[in-house]
Amino acid sequence: MEGGDHLAHERKKAQFDVEAMKIVWAGSRHAFEVSDRISKLVASDPAFRKDNRPMLSRKELFKNTLRKAAYAWKRIIELRLSEEEASKLRFYVDEPAFTDLHWGMFLPAIKGQGTEEQQQKWLPLAYKMQIIGCYAQTELGHGSNSSKWWPGGLGKISTHAVVYARLITDGQDHGVHGFIVQLRSLDDHSPLPGITVGDIGMKFGNGAYNTMDNGVLRFDHVRIPRDQMLMKVSQVSREGKYSQSNVPRQLVYGTMVFVRQTIVADASCALSRAVCIATRYSAVRRQFGSQNGGPETQVIDYKTQQSRLFPLLASAYAFRFVGEWLKWLYTDVTQRLQANDFSTLPEAHACTAGLKSLTTAATADGIEECRKLCGGHGYLCSSGLPELFAVYVPACTYEGDNTVLLLQVARFLVKTLSQLGSGKQPVGTTAYMGQVEHLMQCHCNVQKAEDWLKPAVILEAFEARSARMSVACAKNLSKFTNPEEGFAELSGDLVEAAIAHCQLIIVSKFIEKLQQDIPGKGVKQQLGVLCNIYALFLLHKHQGDFLSTGCITPKQAYLANEQLRALYSQARPNAIALVDAFNYTDHYLGSILGCYDGNVYPKLYEAAWKDPLNDSVVPDGYREYIWPMLKQQLRTARL
Amino acid sequence: MEGGDHLAHERKKAQFDVEAMKIVWAGSRHAFEVSDRISKLVASDPAFRKDNRPMLSRKELFKNTLRKAAYAWKRIIELRLSEEEASKLRFYVDEPAFTDLHWGMFLPAIKGQGTEEQQQKWLPLAYKMQIIGCYAQTELGHGSNSSKWWPGGLGKISTHAVVYARLITDGQDHGVHGFIVQLRSLDDHSPLPGITVGDIGMKFGNGAYNTMDNGVLRFDHVRIPRDQMLMKVSQVSREGKYSQSNVPRQLVYGTMVFVRQTIVADASCALSRAVCIATRYSAVRRQFGSQNGGPETQVIDYKTQQSRLFPLLASAYAFRFVGEWLKWLYTDVTQRLQANDFSTLPEAHACTAGLKSLTTAATADGIEECRKLCGGHGYLCSSGLPELFAVYVPACTYEGDNTVLLLQVARFLVKTLSQLGSGKQPVGTTAYMGQVEHLMQCHCNVQKAEDWLKPAVILEAFEARSARMSVACAKNLSKFTNPEEGFAELSGDLVEAAIAHCQLIIVSKFIEKLQQDIPGKGVKQQLGVLCNIYALFLLHKHQGDFLSTGCITPKQAYLANEQLRALYSQARPNAIALVDAFNYTDHYLGSILGCYDGNVYPKLYEAAWKDPLNDSVVPDGYREYIWPMLKQQLRTARL
Repeated sequence: MEGGDHLAHERKKAQFDVEAMKIVWAGSRHAFEVSDRISKLVASDPAFRKDNRPMLSRKELFKNTLRKAAYAWKRIIELRLSEEEASKLRFYVDEPAFTDLHWGMFLPAIKGQGTEEQQQKWLPLAYKMQIIGCYAQTELGHGSNSSKWWPGGLGKISTHAVVYARLITDGQDHGVHGFIVQLRSLDDHSPLPGITVGDIGMKFGNGAYNTMDNGVLRFDHVRIPRDQMLMKVSQVSREGKYSQSNVPRQLVYGTMVFVRQTIVADASCALSRAVCIATRYSAVRRQFGSQNGGPETQVIDYKTQQSRLFPLLASAYAFRFVGEWLKWLYTDVTQRLQANDFSTLPEAHACTAGLKSLTTAATADGIEECRKLCGGHGYLCSSGLPELFAVYVPACTYEGDNTVLLLQVARFLVKTLSQLGSGKQPVGTTAYMGQVEHLMQCHCNVQKAEDWLKPAVILEAFEARSARMSVACAKNLSKFTNPEEGFAELSGDLVEAAIAHCQLIIVSKFIEKLQQDIPGKGVKQQLGVLCNIYALFLLHKHQGDFLSTGCITPKQAYLANEQLRALYSQARPNAIALVDAFNYTDHYLGSILGCYDGNVYPKLYEAAWKDPLNDSVVPDGYREYIWPMLKQQLRTARL
Repeated sequence: MEGGDHLAHERKKAQFDVEAMKIVWAGSRHAFEVSDRISKLVASDPAFRKDNRPMLSRKELFKNTLRKAAYAWKRIIELRLSEEEASKLRFYVDEPAFTDLHWGMFLPAIKGQGTEEQQQKWLPLAYKMQIIGCYAQTELGHGSNSSKWWPGGLGKISTHAVVYARLITDGQDHGVHGFIVQLRSLDDHSPLPGITVGDIGMKFGNGAYNTMDNGVLRFDHVRIPRDQMLMKVSQVSREGKYSQSNVPRQLVYGTMVFVRQTIVADASCALSRAVCIATRYSAVRRQFGSQNGGPETQVIDYKTQQSRLFPLLASAYAFRFVGEWLKWLYTDVTQRLQANDFSTLPEAHACTAGLKSLTTAATADGIEECRKLCGGHGYLCSSGLPELFAVYVPACTYEGDNTVLLLQVARFLVKTLSQLGSGKQPVGTTAYMGQVEHLMQCHCNVQKAEDWLKPAVILEAFEARSARMSVACAKNLSKFTNPEEGFAELSGDLVEAAIAHCQLIIVSKFIEKLQQDIPGKGVKQQLGVLCNIYALFLLHKHQGDFLSTGCITPKQAYLANEQLRALYSQARPNAIALVDAFNYTDHYLGSILGCYDGNVYPKLYEAAWKDPLNDSVVPDGYREYIWPMLKQQLRTARL
């Protein structure tokens, strides 16, 4: 029993072609092949080992990250990796580092906001990493006008930053603009005169974001050359004259759509990792229910486990597909912007804001739920789940606090409704609002549990619920003489309406995905099961919404729940194969509980002995503190 | 603005006597005075400093815990503290340590399961800490019969353990029994022959439970004297004969009631700490909404913030009072047991199991919600919230997995219903089931929002919802020929019914508390507001239950939500005073965001510079890894 594949019997149960599902998950054969090759490259290189991360002190941890970043860059050069491959390599190294900000924020900011000249000057330096940059926007106290606080890569490494600051010329405040500022000497790395810079201290979790030098920055009479203001959109002349070019300011929304789309894609990665760990370990772990002295029941066979785990498995797939669609949306918006067509921008903006909020919140909660689903052992760092949670949760706060974003969505929904009267047709994900009259009075005609498997039935229920909640908000808002006051007072209801709308988007994009041609034996069927689990799980969780708006009856809610249970049974034999389809290496997963071969307990036992506390049998501190206690000698002990 | 009390204006708004509320929170004047004195004693002693915990390596952290434990014990002896005071001192030191298991599990196990003789031999040694003990029950793989795994204090410190193992005499297996086993030499602390013992490795979070040596233990032909089997309940004679005394086995349930009651009390402590931090920082933090260049809006004034924060504030109070009641219940059960009255035991057992589950789950989620409510800064260890979360979450898993416990409650509810026919009257928290016929057909007569403030209306709605959900489960179960199969299939519904029942208990105990005489200006009024917030928040969150069972109408659900918003406005001016009433020192809170004086930003800025990464301006690793990167010298660098 020691060697071999302990989950082989589970893999045999699968009713679909796992290899074909891997392609679907990756998005294309090409994407699969790149991911597969690069993830194995990283996994097989001991220089990228990460299992010791939780045990390292902050300094050791950080130094080790610098080594990995340099080594990764060296390998990228040596292997002549393409941009796509290099980015995948950084992804599979799976350790937040200053390079994330250099490539993900500093470079794009210069590309997006710099003039041609500025780009020609700075981009080559940045591409070769002759300078290292970060993105300094967030401040310590919002509006306290004090220090930059949080920017990753700022604390100890970046030589340069794009700094956001007020532009004042001739005593006039032109608002916040971006500037390229050199922070440190390129000779000896010491901060330049007038610049105070440092790390802001430890953050949540073991390893996790403590590999990143999130920083604090203060300026004291720092001067920079005029041409280091990023001047694509606004300019200051040599004479101090301020002017604006005719580049559309809406471009900045295009960038937001891009960034949030990557966050949704990241959510599906993080959630699928957690789900992969919890699913595999639920098949390994046995508890209670032994009959006639036989083995105990696999935890994954309990309905309570299934009803918590399988909706998360379905969510991982749902977020994957909505992320894929958002990639398309970004391309579409970009093409329109280039053609000066701003018509779909507000809808795209609201949609990405809402999906960012929904997917990150569900993923953060889902990772912690997966940790709990692993029982006590999920609390060990060697389970991988504590670090995954700690490294993931900032996604709920950065790039727009999740609640603030939902209020933006709600504002857009109310506006969309108010414009219906004037004949303005809602577009994209709000198109269903055009049928608001129908949706306000339609009746769900589910009569037996299986009726809930029909995509049209599900869609109409979700559309009706969302429309009715938005309409109720709009009606209640109209009772206030001061609209902003009403908006503040009813913000709780507005958030709920926005959630209903965004859930509809995810459900409908999953259904659209299933309408595509998906090759591979049984693949589409399994995705259909997951899609229905996702939708009916949401329907059950939010049945208060569906019932209070009269979209469905209590009896229909009951039938949905009955159908959901049947779907869990259908998913059960495929569960292990469905997480195998993520194609994660044991290195990337970083979890003993989730290891591919399921040989969990011997590995846990071995790993324990690597803890620094086990360096000696008698622990450091025994002689000073424990011995005097046992020998009643505390009075004279130096403590 | 730098010094002074930045929250003074908030404290002035309070409409009740904070000092009187402190007594209510503490439970009695005596309890308040002990807590107040001991917490200040700990806070003022630099030896108990804990702000550096997240930065220490595992070994440093653990050694420091040993020092604190020895020092605390020294102070307890020097100051001749009573048992109550000593236990408070350990509580306010606020660092998990081997002493928790020594006092909380090892000693009680000997007291509860040892004979008079055994107690006389072992207790004096343990009371003086001449031996240090732990409680070795949990194993690595459930049923894998391999290693003890998890026991706190086992890994590096305990000299003895109560070990649970199968008793086999004359080839007959008598099941699991407890044995006192010496693990380590009292001379040099080395493990005794045949014993393999060590730490199981890093756990979730910075500091947190990494101060504890959760351990692994294996025996290889270890013999112990016969008289180290704990023999109060069963005995083995010198001749190897197994027998049982007439001590009732139900006593073990009494112990479970005790342990779970302390867990509920701990939940209110942990949640109130998080709420105190989030509430104070929500009053300090300002964001958006500046009018005419004035200051921005305090975050606590946003309804979205209130609707997430105030229910948690109300929950902290609710859990406090239900915990207080559980203390009474334990006393009551103990007295009955001593009089051989086992009639209330099943109900008390179900009730504590359910409340343990509900309060720990809500507290774990609540702490993380409070962290998110602090925005980005909640992610810093100096906010105190990451460590509080990481140190708290095991409560959801230990002493009974929360889902397993809820299934036990559900089983009890179904049984209670089934016995109604035979005329058996339900007792205690299930007494309402006696009115099941009324509850199945009653109608809520709320017509305007304020009707929801009536305790009788709230109680009936919660009773009806719980009764109807249990009855529905019972009906559906009866459709299965094999009851256990039905129980497994419907476990999701059963869990929901159990939650409904437990929420009713908490709501009803809060209402009962308000029927007592509570002195102090405005104190009872404020508690009334919190009680209503707690109940109506639950009603809104679970409105699907209330609507699907027909307990309330959609209109009434809407009115409840309206009333809830009004209650938030009433709670707002009292929020800071309501968390001041917890009487937590800044030391105990361990949070810059939650500091009493609200002077958050300068303190955050100062704290940042204490991070080890800021020991040097140029970080360790720059020369080896960053310089070669910037200078394009990676090819020859040693990485």
